[in-house]
Amino acid sequence: MTTIAILGSTGYTALELIKILLRHPNTKITALTSREDTRSVGLVHPSLSGRLDLSLENLSPKEIANRSECVFCCLPHTASAKIVPELLDYGTKVIDLGADYRLDTVEVFETWYAEKHPDSDRLGKVPYGLPELFRNQIIGTNLVANPGCYPTSAILPLVPLIKAGLIEPEDIIIDSKSGVSGAGRKPKLTTLYPECNENISAYNIGTHRHTPEIEQIITAASGKKTTVLFTPHLTPMDRGILSTIYSKPIRPVTQNELLKTLRNFYQNEPFVKIVEHLPSTKDVSGTNFVHITACVAGNRVITVSAIDNLIKGASGAAVQNFNLMFNYIETTALI
Amino acid sequence: MTTIAILGSTGYTALELIKILLRHPNTKITALTSREDTRSVGLVHPSLSGRLDLSLENLSPKEIANRSECVFCCLPHTASAKIVPELLDYGTKVIDLGADYRLDTVEVFETWYAEKHPDSDRLGKVPYGLPELFRNQIIGTNLVANPGCYPTSAILPLVPLIKAGLIEPEDIIIDSKSGVSGAGRKPKLTTLYPECNENISAYNIGTHRHTPEIEQIITAASGKKTTVLFTPHLTPMDRGILSTIYSKPIRPVTQNELLKTLRNFYQNEPFVKIVEHLPSTKDVSGTNFVHITACVAGNRVITVSAIDNLIKGASGAAVQNFNLMFNYIETTALI
Amino acid sequence: MTTIAILGSTGYTALELIKILLRHPNTKITALTSREDTRSVGLVHPSLSGRLDLSLENLSPKEIANRSECVFCCLPHTASAKIVPELLDYGTKVIDLGADYRLDTVEVFETWYAEKHPDSDRLGKVPYGLPELFRNQIIGTNLVANPGCYPTSAILPLVPLIKAGLIEPEDIIIDSKSGVSGAGRKPKLTTLYPECNENISAYNIGTHRHTPEIEQIITAASGKKTTVLFTPHLTPMDRGILSTIYSKPIRPVTQNELLKTLRNFYQNEPFVKIVEHLPSTKDVSGTNFVHITACVAGNRVITVSAIDNLIKGASGAAVQNFNLMFNYIETTALI
Amino acid sequence: MTTIAILGSTGYTALELIKILLRHPNTKITALTSREDTRSVGLVHPSLSGRLDLSLENLSPKEIANRSECVFCCLPHTASAKIVPELLDYGTKVIDLGADYRLDTVEVFETWYAEKHPDSDRLGKVPYGLPELFRNQIIGTNLVANPGCYPTSAILPLVPLIKAGLIEPEDIIIDSKSGVSGAGRKPKLTTLYPECNENISAYNIGTHRHTPEIEQIITAASGKKTTVLFTPHLTPMDRGILSTIYSKPIRPVTQNELLKTLRNFYQNEPFVKIVEHLPSTKDVSGTNFVHITACVAGNRVITVSAIDNLIKGASGAAVQNFNLMFNYIETTALI
Repeated sequence: MTTIAILGSTGYTALELIKILLRHPNTKITALTSREDTRSVGLVHPSLSGRLDLSLENLSPKEIANRSECVFCCLPHTASAKIVPELLDYGTKVIDLGADYRLDTVEVFETWYAEKHPDSDRLGKVPYGLPELFRNQIIGTNLVANPGCYPTSAILPLVPLIKAGLIEPEDIIIDSKSGVSGAGRKPKLTTLYPECNENISAYNIGTHRHTPEIEQIITAASGKKTTVLFTPHLTPMDRGILSTIYSKPIRPVTQNELLKTLRNFYQNEPFVKIVEHLPSTKDVSGTNFVHITACVAGNRVITVSAIDNLIKGASGAAVQNFNLMFNYIETTALI
Repeated sequence: MTTIAILGSTGYTALELIKILLRHPNTKITALTSREDTRSVGLVHPSLSGRLDLSLENLSPKEIANRSECVFCCLPHTASAKIVPELLDYGTKVIDLGADYRLDTVEVFETWYAEKHPDSDRLGKVPYGLPELFRNQIIGTNLVANPGCYPTSAILPLVPLIKAGLIEPEDIIIDSKSGVSGAGRKPKLTTLYPECNENISAYNIGTHRHTPEIEQIITAASGKKTTVLFTPHLTPMDRGILSTIYSKPIRPVTQNELLKTLRNFYQNEPFVKIVEHLPSTKDVSGTNFVHITACVAGNRVITVSAIDNLIKGASGAAVQNFNLMFNYIETTALI
Repeated sequence: MTTIAILGSTGYTALELIKILLRHPNTKITALTSREDTRSVGLVHPSLSGRLDLSLENLSPKEIANRSECVFCCLPHTASAKIVPELLDYGTKVIDLGADYRLDTVEVFETWYAEKHPDSDRLGKVPYGLPELFRNQIIGTNLVANPGCYPTSAILPLVPLIKAGLIEPEDIIIDSKSGVSGAGRKPKLTTLYPECNENISAYNIGTHRHTPEIEQIITAASGKKTTVLFTPHLTPMDRGILSTIYSKPIRPVTQNELLKTLRNFYQNEPFVKIVEHLPSTKDVSGTNFVHITACVAGNRVITVSAIDNLIKGASGAAVQNFNLMFNYIETTALI
Repeated sequence: MTTIAILGSTGYTALELIKILLRHPNTKITALTSREDTRSVGLVHPSLSGRLDLSLENLSPKEIANRSECVFCCLPHTASAKIVPELLDYGTKVIDLGADYRLDTVEVFETWYAEKHPDSDRLGKVPYGLPELFRNQIIGTNLVANPGCYPTSAILPLVPLIKAGLIEPEDIIIDSKSGVSGAGRKPKLTTLYPECNENISAYNIGTHRHTPEIEQIITAASGKKTTVLFTPHLTPMDRGILSTIYSKPIRPVTQNELLKTLRNFYQNEPFVKIVEHLPSTKDVSGTNFVHITACVAGNRVITVSAIDNLIKGASGAAVQNFNLMFNYIETTALI
């Protein structure tokens, strides 16, 4: 049994994490933190009524470490990096669901996040928590940078095709559509029901902070410095990301060749399903699965992927990483 | 051409009012107020981009009266009643979309709203702006209390049947389902998209402030002091109120008799449609129409009504009242 | 390991059942039937892509019995009752998710379903699959009548209060709001997206076939023949039933007394949560939980319950019954 | 007063057309046709209850022409072209909301629609009903090919930038997101509420029949034969199309230059609004407006447009064309 603390427990990511961990036979949630909210978790998240008898607390890193062997950080950027060093010193393992340890260099971080990084020495040494690409690094680590939701949806279909030399790493366009839960649980005009319902719009074209995360992995996969054009859209649904990705074939390819390459690459992956139809977000909603397909149209290769942004795009991936770090069966609580 | 000011212009009611008035051949919007927001109306409501060249202003009653012959108040309760006396003194006519002048006695107001009424002497003398019941009083007036959205949906089906002696005015249960726009445009956790979407819940059972408004009209129609049980529900849609109303027949009645009574009562009303099927909110969405039916089941008469909460339940009714007060054709801009 | 056949595999209930059973450590799905569709289950339900390697088949009762120890019937009414006798003769246990065995008398069945019952002798002898009320009968049986979704949402809050003598069994009004998945997966104009979205309407007032099922259980609980007024509504959401239930107190009661009675009644039930807030369908979505509260308003006791119509209202309850029938831990695969 | 017939009256396009025409002071609907449905229009479209006293009829072209001066065809492809010649011979003017007269050559039509064109001689001579580009041709004509919904959303932002020599006509990617009403009112599994709700997916990548329509106009605007890559998506909302369009600048451009070019091009257009924010489908929902913006990101120009697929994308544009053909003020019934 592994004891678990969740930092920043009021949001949707934390809620989803708690629900998954309640199904996990080898974990016990022992601390839920919040800086301001001290209510019972069943009041903060009524869906947990009668299922978890804990109240939120404002705890110090030491108190957190005393209570837990593994900490999941669901905190705003830079908040994790301010306490992770101390948590690691106490011997706690940490899975950071935020952005603090995803980028390899402090320059890129500070360019995109416009804040000083509180733990910059560690950048570049933390495994990126996509087990499908970095499983071996994750298994032995005490800190994982859980990927952003959009990057997961973009990286998984692209990397195998780039590595196989089928598509150019340059001039990739990623047109993503996300459910509203991705915008968090803090009340804002832009995520009010009557503003989002019956509505779709693009936002942060070319400036979304998940862009450098995608570029970093594509650059590593291709071996040459690469930029992508990433356009997120806010879609009238709770959950899900659909990414429609436009790339250029290096040489003439067929859909069969693309699908075969993807299938071979992911043949042993429990959560990646290469499908022949066009994926739907609903088909993976509430699951840790990603559905991927690829096709050829005009002079382009188009890959389409679907994930649940809160599961494979956040809390499901975090538990997958947890299972690897603590030597549990990777799919535990996730099927 | 009548000049119009709208007070409290940032919300959904004001937006809907502006859209209707832009179609009205005899009105010109000359002032839009807000205490805090001074942006162009096209930024506050992007759907008005390029359609109305006005910015929001924080104006005094005198400035408002100087600019407009008619004022629509879309303000929180007690805010209207603080300035209406002055506006009326300047000779401006006023349509109050809020609750300040709907109730006849200061006691009832202060019991339900828990605040002192700023203009209590006027209570009981202001026409209740349901033209279908109070047209003659509205035509000659300079101040109208525009009805609440739920009361409109409950009063219109009930009054004809009570007046005809077909149903008991006592022990009426009104189970209403409203879209989220009824909760306003101020960001709140409870109306965030991921909280409301894929969700329905009851709220304020027996304590909703529209209750005394319904009771007042039912009491007047029946001639005996009456209470109702009113249960509103928050429904995952932008707009619309469906009210399912359970009452007791005074004597055995048939569906035909109920429908005939309703049809006779509303035979000359342009916006009330008595239908034989069960009404749907979508059928009246974006319109000033109300659909009403009635049937008998078990020992109960069940009436069902559907309105658009922002139109017949607010801004459409306000323009209908405006048309009557200013001697325009009642349906102008509303069909 | 128990082998499982699912009859009628193309609909939403079957899909949900398969998803639950894929998480169940002690079951193996060995047959999926359909009269017409013979595609792979991953094509029929793309969310199962790569998760279950079976195709739909048109199988005889004998073939079904040869392959499975337990059969879940997701069939239209009378279709189950035509084959259940033969399946039971072969020694297979059966959980019928349809209506065929829920009603105790052939007269009531034939009145409401307007068809001859193919296995009428068995009526009245089959346990009603609400473990919270009939656990002991379910444990030893080889055939369970899984309750209707609406009845589950109405019976669970009412029975404890009736048995405690707190509310009248007569003159109960059940105003229920259901998501669209309850209407099945067969294409119909009435459940087309643009017809249901942004829309709420009542249907089948006083004539819905779940009415006699509720009346039968209320009658048994109260000891006197009882009718209810049941009004279902189609709500723009996938899943969930919220039932707002109006009853009359037999004597003056407080909310505390109501809640205490409910809590005592369900104190050992893993899936029933008595809550103090007004329940939301979203809080139980995707789970086998039911949230129930009660309050007093006017001269009425109002109980409100929320379930997921496909889980606690269908497939989750079916697996709960399965666990009891096959002596597995009751909550297996359901938490 | 112009008499109007609508052919194919059971669908969403016809419904929207009727609603607009009921607001038009100079039209009278005199015939509604359907091959199979002969019910009153208030039963076919309950939102029209009590608003239009007509029943659907199966009429011959001669009967239609006898009753109407203008015919709107809301028919499947090739159905219009089978009767348009006869209608025109009788002196009736026709607005075809279908695809039959949009493409200039029979070869392209028959390639994409896989059917023989019944009136191929007329192809290439019928004005394409986008008044913003082809107003003069529309004014004098007796037959208009009303544009497809997607093409309207793609052509309006692209043409001014291509004509100004700012973007390449080649290698344009159009990633469009449409509401479900675009898929019609015929019951299909793919447009059932529980299939579409909480779901987004791409469909017909590179093969959608609106592709050649876009290519034809882009080719004409650029003067060189051009193909586009068009990817439509089914989005969980009733109405609206958002098109995110990726093109390559011919030379370095700024956002200001793009916006200025668009504003100049459309400065006198009543329905085209060039905005600086990213457009939302909701902002134009229920209107004939199109919102367009443009920006630069990476090495791409990105234009984004929003329309209501049923209004500016179909019935609103049709009435705009009607107003031009019959010499009414172009915006009548459309503001």
